[in-house]
Amino acid sequence: MIDYKLLEALATVIECNGFERAGEALGLSQSAVSQRLKTLEVRLGQPVLIRHPHLEPTPAGRRLLNHYQQVQLLERDLRSALPTLETASPRLRIAINADSLATWWADAVGRFCRDEGLLLDLVIEDQDVGLRRLRDGEVAACLCASDQPIAGARCVPLGTMVYHPYATPAYIARYFPQGPSEAAFRHAPAIVYGPHDQLQHRFLAQCGYHGAFPYHLCPSSEGFVRLAAAGIGYGMMPHRQVADLVKAGQLASLDPQRRLEVPLYWHFWRHSGALLERLTGMLGEVQLT
Amino acid sequence: MIDYKLLEALATVIECNGFERAGEALGLSQSAVSQRLKTLEVRLGQPVLIRHPHLEPTPAGRRLLNHYQQVQLLERDLRSALPTLETASPRLRIAINADSLATWWADAVGRFCRDEGLLLDLVIEDQDVGLRRLRDGEVAACLCASDQPIAGARCVPLGTMVYHPYATPAYIARYFPQGPSEAAFRHAPAIVYGPHDQLQHRFLAQCGYHGAFPYHLCPSSEGFVRLAAAGIGYGMMPHRQVADLVKAGQLASLDPQRRLEVPLYWHFWRHSGALLERLTGMLGEVQLT
Repeated sequence: MIDYKLLEALATVIECNGFERAGEALGLSQSAVSQRLKTLEVRLGQPVLIRHPHLEPTPAGRRLLNHYQQVQLLERDLRSALPTLETASPRLRIAINADSLATWWADAVGRFCRDEGLLLDLVIEDQDVGLRRLRDGEVAACLCASDQPIAGARCVPLGTMVYHPYATPAYIARYFPQGPSEAAFRHAPAIVYGPHDQLQHRFLAQCGYHGAFPYHLCPSSEGFVRLAAAGIGYGMMPHRQVADLVKAGQLASLDPQRRLEVPLYWHFWRHSGALLERLTGMLGEVQLT
Repeated sequence: MIDYKLLEALATVIECNGFERAGEALGLSQSAVSQRLKTLEVRLGQPVLIRHPHLEPTPAGRRLLNHYQQVQLLERDLRSALPTLETASPRLRIAINADSLATWWADAVGRFCRDEGLLLDLVIEDQDVGLRRLRDGEVAACLCASDQPIAGARCVPLGTMVYHPYATPAYIARYFPQGPSEAAFRHAPAIVYGPHDQLQHRFLAQCGYHGAFPYHLCPSSEGFVRLAAAGIGYGMMPHRQVADLVKAGQLASLDPQRRLEVPLYWHFWRHSGALLERLTGMLGEVQLT
């Protein structure tokens, strides 16, 4: 049987990003934490932690952490069957797309987290990286736009987020005085979330435009909205995120006929325990728009 | 003299995240873009691009890209002296802390970007990584909480952001019925931005609490606010970001006497040209709170 005290030390050092704080969290001295990791590495015959330039697990350490997380989830089920066992909140590591986190996610899971005493460890990833991290066992679930299944995991459709091309009215008057056109797209600065973001390209392709266009890069949902609201560019935003700004007249669609729908899927490991099953059941009833 | 067509091909492939889209952007075939990169690698005697699992520059490629960016900035100055030269918008790559991007940044730089035709390439990094990327020449400037100078770069203080410990009134009534206390901190789930985020620890230390506490991890400014507003946890948020929610009674400080001040600094390469100097002058006049 694995000595879970050693895995707990590894998990806590990563979570706390340091030996001293991990010691505080565990009620141990810093050197006792070090000693546990050393013991773990000796037993394993290889390092579990990279110290420089940042504390991070080695691939072997990552596998151990994932195992530790799965055991914690199973223990949680056990505890609800045997409530006299000492309790501690489980932490669920989930890869999630930025726009969900900036819009419907918190309202959807709020009551669930409170009722279950669940702590979230959220990781923002684009879908390819998120699914890879699920496959590698680094996260317990992944919320993304891909329905590509992962062996051993389930994939549940959650619904669709709706995006519109928003900008300030002043921006639209300046760059799109006659509405969308090839000439306008060529010169109007757009805002793109990152190099993997395809929404802007999909929108332009839908409009029949396939040429180059100037754009800002802004890998933050909230920053994206702020740049648009400051008149710096136009971009594809979830209606839900900017409904108040649209209502107040600060943002408007530059092409009210156009909308892009992005389906979202919830991927999670089968046999990860009842908590994830319940969370999945709850997410299946959420309205995304 | 370097053949800048080759560097442009490299920069465009990275920006567009693909050879086909880079070709479209440059008005070239995909194979012409490939050929330019091959030529560059032959001249350099080493690869500039990693193809798998994601397109990204090698360390050598990164140096070339940084050089290319600096040349573009210098060209921009030249163009304003010689306005008959063909013009194209420069793109400025800046590392920035997430909370600035979620609050004051866009309003501060909006007019400047419009007037100068400047495109932003924003990268969200915590301060240590941001400063390292500046030192490595991957970004032209870094906005962060560290005043640690980088050789060859200037460091300008921009002012202070003010953080308070906010939660919903219902959350405060449930977890802090008698106000902040050791027992309350031990059980109340907090929200922490990421493992490098020290605000929560600083707040607790200020309150005289040094023990363990349960927390959610949420590496998104907007997601952070949404989790708090959904009653999932409490956390340190910039007053400016949540002023509307506080006014509407949806969030309140659980300890109105406490505030944390975070100074912000703007680091940028000397001799990067007049555009960065003007941006710096403009940022020096911004009100952060």
